[in-house]
Amino acid sequence: MVLQTTRTTNQVTNPQSTDWGAIATELEKIVGKRGVVRRKEELLVYECDGLTSYRQRPALVVLPRTTEEVAAVVKVCDRAQVPFVARGSGTGLSGGALPIEHCLLIVTVRMNRTLKVDFDNQQVTVQPGVINNWVTQTVSGAGFYYAPDPSSQSVCSIGGNVAENSGGVHCLKYGVTVNHVLKLTIVTPEGEIVDIGAAVPESPGYDLTGIFVGSEGTLGIATEITLRILKVPDSIQVLLADFTSVAAAGQTVSDVISAGIIPAGMEMMDNFSINAVEDVVKTDCYPRDAEAILLIELDGLAVEVATNIQRVEQICRQNGARNVAIATEPEERLTLWKGRKAAFAAMGKISPDYYVQDGVIPRSQLPYVLKEIANLSRTYGYGVANVFHAGDGNLHPLVLYDNSVPGQLEQVEALGGEILKLCVEVGGSISGEHGIGADKRCYMPAMFSEADLETMHWVRQVFDPQGIANPEKLFPTPRTCGEAARAKAQQQFPGVERF
Amino acid sequence: MVLQTTRTTNQVTNPQSTDWGAIATELEKIVGKRGVVRRKEELLVYECDGLTSYRQRPALVVLPRTTEEVAAVVKVCDRAQVPFVARGSGTGLSGGALPIEHCLLIVTVRMNRTLKVDFDNQQVTVQPGVINNWVTQTVSGAGFYYAPDPSSQSVCSIGGNVAENSGGVHCLKYGVTVNHVLKLTIVTPEGEIVDIGAAVPESPGYDLTGIFVGSEGTLGIATEITLRILKVPDSIQVLLADFTSVAAAGQTVSDVISAGIIPAGMEMMDNFSINAVEDVVKTDCYPRDAEAILLIELDGLAVEVATNIQRVEQICRQNGARNVAIATEPEERLTLWKGRKAAFAAMGKISPDYYVQDGVIPRSQLPYVLKEIANLSRTYGYGVANVFHAGDGNLHPLVLYDNSVPGQLEQVEALGGEILKLCVEVGGSISGEHGIGADKRCYMPAMFSEADLETMHWVRQVFDPQGIANPEKLFPTPRTCGEAARAKAQQQFPGVERF
Repeated sequence: MVLQTTRTTNQVTNPQSTDWGAIATELEKIVGKRGVVRRKEELLVYECDGLTSYRQRPALVVLPRTTEEVAAVVKVCDRAQVPFVARGSGTGLSGGALPIEHCLLIVTVRMNRTLKVDFDNQQVTVQPGVINNWVTQTVSGAGFYYAPDPSSQSVCSIGGNVAENSGGVHCLKYGVTVNHVLKLTIVTPEGEIVDIGAAVPESPGYDLTGIFVGSEGTLGIATEITLRILKVPDSIQVLLADFTSVAAAGQTVSDVISAGIIPAGMEMMDNFSINAVEDVVKTDCYPRDAEAILLIELDGLAVEVATNIQRVEQICRQNGARNVAIATEPEERLTLWKGRKAAFAAMGKISPDYYVQDGVIPRSQLPYVLKEIANLSRTYGYGVANVFHAGDGNLHPLVLYDNSVPGQLEQVEALGGEILKLCVEVGGSISGEHGIGADKRCYMPAMFSEADLETMHWVRQVFDPQGIANPEKLFPTPRTCGEAARAKAQQQFPGVERF
Repeated sequence: MVLQTTRTTNQVTNPQSTDWGAIATELEKIVGKRGVVRRKEELLVYECDGLTSYRQRPALVVLPRTTEEVAAVVKVCDRAQVPFVARGSGTGLSGGALPIEHCLLIVTVRMNRTLKVDFDNQQVTVQPGVINNWVTQTVSGAGFYYAPDPSSQSVCSIGGNVAENSGGVHCLKYGVTVNHVLKLTIVTPEGEIVDIGAAVPESPGYDLTGIFVGSEGTLGIATEITLRILKVPDSIQVLLADFTSVAAAGQTVSDVISAGIIPAGMEMMDNFSINAVEDVVKTDCYPRDAEAILLIELDGLAVEVATNIQRVEQICRQNGARNVAIATEPEERLTLWKGRKAAFAAMGKISPDYYVQDGVIPRSQLPYVLKEIANLSRTYGYGVANVFHAGDGNLHPLVLYDNSVPGQLEQVEALGGEILKLCVEVGGSISGEHGIGADKRCYMPAMFSEADLETMHWVRQVFDPQGIANPEKLFPTPRTCGEAARAKAQQQFPGVERF
């Protein structure tokens, strides 16, 4: 790509010279006095998202209510050449909503209205600050639900889900956020309002919805989002199987899929996680001596679920499952899921801190990769709990450490990097559903060639010629992907030095 | 978008001054003498694709065999600033592979190898010239198949499917081509080889696979394509129901989906089509006095299919179906499908020519839109047969005419334009699966705002700064979307004059 431009990205005004007082006054004219946060102690609330090891106070926070207000606010940034970062509920785990120094943080929390519900065509249009769970609550009376279900679904926002292309337990069968977004109204980094996608699934021209979903706030802000809703399935059953080896559980995952069965969810927990959960949550369902358990949820027509659950049970037993429990009633299902849902919180109780990694591997590599993670855990001397979406190979190793001990965070991050390296080596990906954000951008060159990244860079340039939309995220840049980070990445990924 | 560039698109060398003899010699060095077609009478074979009303002989045709050969060929075009058009089997219905004057046509017919089969991870990697059907043939022995099934699947190429984001009968349940492409190796219009996507479904960064699939050859040429394959379902049944009104059949389609049933395919044929098919194919299954028939295919587990087919039958009868026939055995299924599969060919037998339109509407608008199409048919005085993918609202009205009568083609195209206008008015799309190509680009402003199209234009510019990849396709341009075409479009879509 040799496109020459008369402007270069990141050519932002010297941040020291920005007159934030004047900007605050302009913003107050757009959103009202109560829509702008200026006081330092109030700004502290916004200094990090769910990745709390990175912190930075923004210069100002603005709380718009409508597409037009967002467009007007972004135009202020464009004119003043100041960077902006969009933030939903701030639950992201990769630092995608982390402010940068001297930026405006645009928080969508007041954009919390459902704009349209169309049961005939199975669609709902919402503002970005609407909480994931609310969508299902809005439509459940008519027998519908919204499928993507990140663990944080009771607090995370749809806007954040769109930015990060969020997944969840049920994405094995139903796909991630991008598979459920039909249409978007976006505000580009120049403050233009653009509609992308269509109310019908197929639309000609370039698929800009596909490129926008998962772009982590670097191409603009989605201000109206039309989502596909699904009919609640006729029947749901959950199966819990326990195994004396991780390899046997991994083989079961492969065999279920190979049998042509696509469970609604298929989750694995290892012995470390099982014990952590039983220590804290006391479900009394998860056998402490099992090397791994699988939780497999099937949904669909009652006869289909009843038949498939028998087939899944048989596959589990063929792979040496010791016990298989099946829950058909809602309360029984909740009991089986309780430990899995509380797993991250449980880690927080048994360890002062934990670091969640997020990588994807081809399913066939599960046994090998889990064995290698166990080796890395021994080498580095940190416990690693594996609780993850086994069906689509989306690993979530949780590395336990103590942030108050100097040097532990750095070691744990290095261990996380080794796990990502492993994922890439077996043909996988450095992020499944948490995004790249501030956290993993130095690893992008491990997965993408220079030409690949250059292509993405030019796409970004099209939307954001001034480079003011969530800069220092997603892509490695010489300025911010600093010496230390690069040295670390180089050590792990010899190809990285070209960036 | 105000990105300024030092080059503008379509700044191609004066075509008259191109030394095609020298280019042919260069190309022969890359692909060998037999890989270049120079003789005028041989070039005639390539002057059109499936949209035969547009014809243009290319300057030269080249037949590469590998990614590297394609890259070298494209670099020749880039250096000489000559436009190129990629062509697979040439079965497209929107003129996407139509040559332009003074272009090089790059034909992928020799790129017909399957590069990798990975049953464990349910993936197949092929070259673009591989025929759609071959993919299923390659993997069917192991119990797999490739889901997207355009009617032309026995002759159309995977490369063409990727360019047009092709659909088919089974796309209602399984999605279109983009939902089945995991990874691509592409040659950009500057001759660079870039890998996009990943072998695992989720990949960070911008979703360039999503943007490339359906870009109609304007962003480069896919030279290696990794496709997802699915397990062959346990059971398949087909139901034929006949109705005394189109509205009742349309309501049945809505009711089936609202009941939470997603058939593998749900096709509708109107009275006109039924009689045309019975005249020609003589299936003896389609009642000539029915106003509409529905063909509904269900697949899945045997118990699930058996239960759902009963539910579908009940929904048909509740909506006034006179007869419902169910085929469980493969030969019976083929008999029911025979007329539908032969419908386009049947039109060719009862009318000298036919013009296929391709638009999408929200399912809930089916009865209204079909009534309006009947009105338009009367107003214009041309028969319109409706044979289409009812489940996803993808209409294929076939307008019958006689190309030897001067003026008929123009009238029929105007009628087609009115149908598209109707689709857009009810919130639909101007193309479901055939693409925009040369045929419908003047209608793009009816569906997209100036800002939307400008955004797409800049994305194109990123990949193709010289504007040499399939120019004069997909987007309206002042130069080629000439006065006559614009006048016609303006008449139908008052907003169009801004282009």
